[in-house]
Amino acid sequence: MLRTHTCGELTIINAGNKVTLCGWIQRSRDLGGMTFIDLRDRYGITQLAFNMDVNAALCEKARTLGREFVLKASGVVIERSSKNSKMPTGDIEILVEDFEILNKSKLPPFTIEDNTDGGEEQRMKYRYLDLRRNIIKKNLELRHKMAIETRIFLNSKNFIEIETPCLIKSTPEGARDFVVPSRINPGEFYALPQSPQTFKQLLMIAGYDRYYQIVRCFRDEDLRSDRQPEFTQIDCEMSFVTQEDVLNNFEGLAKHLFKNVRGIEAKEFPRISYDDAMKYYGTDKPDIRFEIKFHGLNDIVKGKGFKVFDEAQLIVGICASGCGEYSRKQLDELTDFVKRPQIGASGMVYVKYNNDGTFKSSVDKFFNEEELKKWARAFDAKPGDLILILAGATEKTLKALGELRLEMGNRLGLRDPEIFAPLWVVDFPLLEWDEETKRFYAKHHPFTSPKPEDILLLDTNPAAVRANAYDLVINGVEIGGGSIRIHSKDLQNKMLNILGFSNEEAQKQFGFLMNAFEYGAPPHGGIAFGFDRWCAVFGGSDSIRDYIAFPKNNSGRDVMIDSPASISQQQLDELSIIVKKLF
Amino acid sequence: MLRTHTCGELTIINAGNKVTLCGWIQRSRDLGGMTFIDLRDRYGITQLAFNMDVNAALCEKARTLGREFVLKASGVVIERSSKNSKMPTGDIEILVEDFEILNKSKLPPFTIEDNTDGGEEQRMKYRYLDLRRNIIKKNLELRHKMAIETRIFLNSKNFIEIETPCLIKSTPEGARDFVVPSRINPGEFYALPQSPQTFKQLLMIAGYDRYYQIVRCFRDEDLRSDRQPEFTQIDCEMSFVTQEDVLNNFEGLAKHLFKNVRGIEAKEFPRISYDDAMKYYGTDKPDIRFEIKFHGLNDIVKGKGFKVFDEAQLIVGICASGCGEYSRKQLDELTDFVKRPQIGASGMVYVKYNNDGTFKSSVDKFFNEEELKKWARAFDAKPGDLILILAGATEKTLKALGELRLEMGNRLGLRDPEIFAPLWVVDFPLLEWDEETKRFYAKHHPFTSPKPEDILLLDTNPAAVRANAYDLVINGVEIGGGSIRIHSKDLQNKMLNILGFSNEEAQKQFGFLMNAFEYGAPPHGGIAFGFDRWCAVFGGSDSIRDYIAFPKNNSGRDVMIDSPASISQQQLDELSIIVKKLF
Repeated sequence: MLRTHTCGELTIINAGNKVTLCGWIQRSRDLGGMTFIDLRDRYGITQLAFNMDVNAALCEKARTLGREFVLKASGVVIERSSKNSKMPTGDIEILVEDFEILNKSKLPPFTIEDNTDGGEEQRMKYRYLDLRRNIIKKNLELRHKMAIETRIFLNSKNFIEIETPCLIKSTPEGARDFVVPSRINPGEFYALPQSPQTFKQLLMIAGYDRYYQIVRCFRDEDLRSDRQPEFTQIDCEMSFVTQEDVLNNFEGLAKHLFKNVRGIEAKEFPRISYDDAMKYYGTDKPDIRFEIKFHGLNDIVKGKGFKVFDEAQLIVGICASGCGEYSRKQLDELTDFVKRPQIGASGMVYVKYNNDGTFKSSVDKFFNEEELKKWARAFDAKPGDLILILAGATEKTLKALGELRLEMGNRLGLRDPEIFAPLWVVDFPLLEWDEETKRFYAKHHPFTSPKPEDILLLDTNPAAVRANAYDLVINGVEIGGGSIRIHSKDLQNKMLNILGFSNEEAQKQFGFLMNAFEYGAPPHGGIAFGFDRWCAVFGGSDSIRDYIAFPKNNSGRDVMIDSPASISQQQLDELSIIVKKLF
Repeated sequence: MLRTHTCGELTIINAGNKVTLCGWIQRSRDLGGMTFIDLRDRYGITQLAFNMDVNAALCEKARTLGREFVLKASGVVIERSSKNSKMPTGDIEILVEDFEILNKSKLPPFTIEDNTDGGEEQRMKYRYLDLRRNIIKKNLELRHKMAIETRIFLNSKNFIEIETPCLIKSTPEGARDFVVPSRINPGEFYALPQSPQTFKQLLMIAGYDRYYQIVRCFRDEDLRSDRQPEFTQIDCEMSFVTQEDVLNNFEGLAKHLFKNVRGIEAKEFPRISYDDAMKYYGTDKPDIRFEIKFHGLNDIVKGKGFKVFDEAQLIVGICASGCGEYSRKQLDELTDFVKRPQIGASGMVYVKYNNDGTFKSSVDKFFNEEELKKWARAFDAKPGDLILILAGATEKTLKALGELRLEMGNRLGLRDPEIFAPLWVVDFPLLEWDEETKRFYAKHHPFTSPKPEDILLLDTNPAAVRANAYDLVINGVEIGGGSIRIHSKDLQNKMLNILGFSNEEAQKQFGFLMNAFEYGAPPHGGIAFGFDRWCAVFGGSDSIRDYIAFPKNNSGRDVMIDSPASISQQQLDELSIIVKKLF
């Protein structure tokens, strides 16, 4: 090794030692007779000292060094005259006797600090410099720790990690596939896996019983800040289990990670049905760090001549404690918020429960004090509270109020990223009707089993069929989801029929799996966690990008390596494909 | 859980317990009054017993069950009357009180036994059944253990596992890339990584110091039994190191795996230069489980009128101990072996050192007893030995003799897969001249650094430049290779120039890396191990396929899922590509 120690380990007990350090120049200060350089590596920062009186030539040479130069410096560990108690190495410095420039550096395009002056675009282009920042390094260290602890837990429970292929087959169900032209088989394509779903089911059929894999997956979707074209899953499957077994096992994993990564002893996770999640929070991934729940008002507000309510399918609201003194401006902001196109409400009704026991509402014309008191009772509101009400079509209104609820949570400071509120959402519907294409889609995926007691409904009322499907939600983020799977060929075929596949199409696309069901497929189920997202939530961040070493931007580009890019005509020829001309 | 125990854990101490097992029917035997079923799961086999006298109906029902049916059986653990000491559960059986068929099975197309009657094609098509065989399960368990121990070792040495992207950019150097058309960026393509080489170097520039990743890589090459289009690497890189540091660290990893996976305390690995490996073994991956080494004979055999020798660039041979009594037929077989097109020798000369001290050779006409005695001395041969000699162009002849050496190792039983002989091959040449394309290629890859003392030769005699590059070889298999890397923009550019890149091309393809070198790149180096191959070698097998859960065949096809396959016109349209018509 070119060094004897790292820049993070020397303390006062090393005083007098002769050492050699390697690292990057974080900053340097010239103070007349002395020059100090903060030398940084992955492990910390150590101060290098140069003294004009001791070695003027060396000190002068040190003064020519720039930020981010790579240095190998040798000298003696000495006690500092002015100590820095904030740094592990703050009691000492190195009186440098000799150094070597291992490499120079141009001036970086942004500062290598937690609060950098670099914009997103610059940071992505020079990602190797961005990755030098302590804040990003901590994220990748967290990710490494998460992976280690995940494996420790699952290995201890007899799970076996098995790698499944990346070059698989495109299927028309689900999101869009990335495809890979085959040179040896002209005109044919592999697809990159959206998940190892069918392979992990085949592993259950093969008898492997408890499988997991921390695995790269791919979806060619339009991107948002919490989505990447490639992402990582903790993918798991178990045989001979019920839903209860899966939930208990993976609640165990989550508690293990809470404890060993975040130092938190988590209590038993609450469970809530999909229907209740929608009813009380307007979302299937409720943030239950704060108590606010929905209350329906249809029974008490209709028939009073207020057309908006009288014509609405649903009137529903929330009560924001202590917000009774919100100003006109604040209320207008909230109205503007719900009217944003992404939220889509046409307006908002408010009721202020004044501290003197009176009410002030935006619908005073239609509802008297007595009526509003009834509303307040429905919400269990106290003087000083604010009631916010939306009305309209059921599904849309629930969703809009769900967003308003989160907005109020933000405004009230109730969404502290250092507080964690995990829960299971269960009893998802099996199917989802799409008005546009006039067909059912699988709510989870086509391999999810209906609840045994609902199987008969498949023929009569598919929309009412519930599945043994479940999601793990933490702080309003869906961390993972899974289900008990179908393990019978006939039921799988029926499910595919409902999703619009003919028997022939079903056989062509999923024949390998349905045939496998005929050779002794055990009952099985599993779950997959979004690893990038889980890391971000544990790191207290909304964005998964800062937990991925080399992420892509919203156009799916890696701006550092400038990819994707055109390829050579020879490559296209070998692959037997032609790029369509745009004009 | 549907079961109380697995099929591998019950012993005599459980006698009397009421248990429930789940598993597959391995076999069943009807013996008049009794029926026995071997129930198999991932953990073992337990015998189920049914007694006509105790419960005739249940016993009759058990007699209808077929091989590979999935069963859930409950009963009491009892001591067996005839014990099977070969099985951990051989002292007991379950007197079944009730069972449920969890799933039926069609008759499998081949037997689920170590010595299956299934051919390669059937086994691959029904891979989920093949994976039920104990022998394949053991391979995947070995692989899992290898991954666990690799991570334990590297984590303990402060290596951080960082995931690098799968969707990167195609580069014209090295093997052929798999590419992925970008829908959002029409006409542009991602490439799948042949290795994370440039990304791990960027991580060193980012200061991560010690990186690893067990990572999927992709090469669109023509396939052989030990190559797959997708394969897994243990990819590693370190900063502030010399070659010596890298070798020591990863010899540590290898020893850790030998010890913890195979229970072997490995001694210090020998090191041999590339030149010596070629000279003494005719290959850069010598199998040193056996001692046989090459001896050159140019000095003592030329000028005796034997045209084949006189005109040859190189005359070189090996001595096979104790083979002096090889028959005419055996010698003919060896001659046929070396004349096979893959080996390419035009003939073979042999000398038998008879037990009576006389010689019998295929060139007695040209060389007398005295001459042959000189040869024997050169080989240190004893009576009873056989000397085999090839002659011709140097490189080709060395390679052919290398193959003959391995063949003799096989014939002499010197290549025991349970014996391991690791070694480092070092001092590889930096470049390799290709006669066909009349240009230099990188022997390792374009990022490998010349030895500092050889840098001046880059201008005068590039072929003579050696690199700080190294391979780990075990039993004649290249397990891994690496090098100290270039970390200066100018040297990298010069290297790319030598490989035929103009400055502009170099900047276009590798500009991101060369620019990164300008922002404080530390000295660094690393290594990558072929994980599939290492598993196969540790498992004592030549074929990596049985260490991959779902491998592809020699045409790059997954015959189970029938991939690659055609994709829909809509997909092609979205990707802006057209498949070229074949006719």
